[in-house]
Amino acid sequence: MLRKEEISEWFGTLQNNICRSLEEADGIAKFQEDLWTREEGGGGRTCIIQAGKVIEKGGVAYSAVYGPVPDFLKKELGIAISEQRTANRGHGMVNAETKAFFATGVSIVIHPRSPMVPIIHMNVRYFETDNGIKWFGGGIDLTPHYVDESDAKYFHACLKKVCDKFNAGYYPKFKKCADDYFFIKHRKETRGIGGIFFDHLNPGPEQSIGNLFEFVKAVGECFAPLYTHFMNHKHSLPFGENEKQWQLLRRGRYVEFNLVYDRGTRFGLETNGRIESILMSLPQMASWTYNYIPEKGSREEQTLSLLKKGIDWV
Amino acid sequence: MLRKEEISEWFGTLQNNICRSLEEADGIAKFQEDLWTREEGGGGRTCIIQAGKVIEKGGVAYSAVYGPVPDFLKKELGIAISEQRTANRGHGMVNAETKAFFATGVSIVIHPRSPMVPIIHMNVRYFETDNGIKWFGGGIDLTPHYVDESDAKYFHACLKKVCDKFNAGYYPKFKKCADDYFFIKHRKETRGIGGIFFDHLNPGPEQSIGNLFEFVKAVGECFAPLYTHFMNHKHSLPFGENEKQWQLLRRGRYVEFNLVYDRGTRFGLETNGRIESILMSLPQMASWTYNYIPEKGSREEQTLSLLKKGIDWV
Repeated sequence: MLRKEEISEWFGTLQNNICRSLEEADGIAKFQEDLWTREEGGGGRTCIIQAGKVIEKGGVAYSAVYGPVPDFLKKELGIAISEQRTANRGHGMVNAETKAFFATGVSIVIHPRSPMVPIIHMNVRYFETDNGIKWFGGGIDLTPHYVDESDAKYFHACLKKVCDKFNAGYYPKFKKCADDYFFIKHRKETRGIGGIFFDHLNPGPEQSIGNLFEFVKAVGECFAPLYTHFMNHKHSLPFGENEKQWQLLRRGRYVEFNLVYDRGTRFGLETNGRIESILMSLPQMASWTYNYIPEKGSREEQTLSLLKKGIDWV
Repeated sequence: MLRKEEISEWFGTLQNNICRSLEEADGIAKFQEDLWTREEGGGGRTCIIQAGKVIEKGGVAYSAVYGPVPDFLKKELGIAISEQRTANRGHGMVNAETKAFFATGVSIVIHPRSPMVPIIHMNVRYFETDNGIKWFGGGIDLTPHYVDESDAKYFHACLKKVCDKFNAGYYPKFKKCADDYFFIKHRKETRGIGGIFFDHLNPGPEQSIGNLFEFVKAVGECFAPLYTHFMNHKHSLPFGENEKQWQLLRRGRYVEFNLVYDRGTRFGLETNGRIESILMSLPQMASWTYNYIPEKGSREEQTLSLLKKGIDWV
């Protein structure tokens, strides 16, 4: 039987491995560690890297928190449980009363220095309750300042390969979820080129909790090779002031998504979470220009035209 | 009888007068005008100033929109109407069914170039429905990057003077509303030094709609002399790289407030408003540094200590 301690311990090791890989690829900056505890139970370790050669600002955060289910979570749970019941067609083992929860995960956002290197985000998480709810969630998505179609293909092909090892239905389903989730509604554009996103992934007749954990492990483990590939291959590409300005504008959109739509961010802000860990996703510097419209035929315009849902990159 | 056309015309003139005063005080930059129309009825004129001598980026937006009451507004109206009924103790002249609305107003946010000049925000607005609801709303609040206590006193004394001409209860009441409204909950700090904020100001036994309009006019008219005072008196103060960095961090907080809490912004984003007019409030450049803590005894630390509710500046 898979124990929650085993999962959270694995997440802690994943954080450590990813930090070491990113430091090695950066070559200059080192992560700073902040340990924190949560009054109601548990805590975390936030690792921040700043002013590197490749990475301008990034965070790799680990947490494992537990305690009585807060009221705000009960409402959210109610909705998710009813979705789960529908999805399982009666196989759900949840009942109405849930008293205690346990949640653990790793979250990453990396803002590179060069506009030629994409921004990346990854999250893997596990949630369980004292009355038998067990969920995995997570995802990886890429936000290039300039969309390079061959990079996009490479990125999505890697994710598809990870998914296909476990379930041929995962990639198409989770790719669509990412398109829908990482969408800046008020701009009518996606945050980047998407990736995969999944939530409330729970054991059922076809998959054990152990299988799901193996999948989540594979997602977590593909992060470092995937992103260091872009760090290594894109960092030395030349760019000028124009590209830097565009990067700042795209970062502004990233800020808009995270503060307006990102569920994890809004949940954290509304529930008195550790602010500096929640907002580590924001870039060192971002910019807003009134009504900026890229020149016809420019690479900026081309990028905008590719920030939409439903592109089959693979 | 005061007609809505008279109010919206006055707001249009106010926008124009304020733009001319700000241009004069800036000395270099000129406002650019964008006219826009709303599919369901009405439209607006957004005036943007960028790259000035004193003003880095700012907007003065006017709008007058009307049409059938959208569903999302009905819910909001329901809440506000019940509040109004309670406040009026039975004098409310609204009934449950409201079919058409009219809304007009002027909104301003100015981000100065120098960290020694404060950011300012003003809004005046009027809302009515076909079945007799009539409301004024608005406010002015100041966000100094460095809180100067004598400036804060000057600012609040000006607002108090405007309020006192109409009702001795206005300033204390609306000052408290501003403290409560312009509050960055997740940071446990106010956005700036507050000011005045009022909403659902409707005619009752003691005040006619004409009186309320005179008050709102006085608020609108105090903006230009108040802000150009700070432009003129603070712009030539010396500052260095340290002050500039701090300004960028404070602007980051401004972005957090606007995207996470500001009702007008969130309302606009959720209701498919004109994005560039809604987000004109965001600065040209803003910054986030992980866990930045000002040095003990620094002016930055002193400013943070003054970003709290309930300070009696007058």
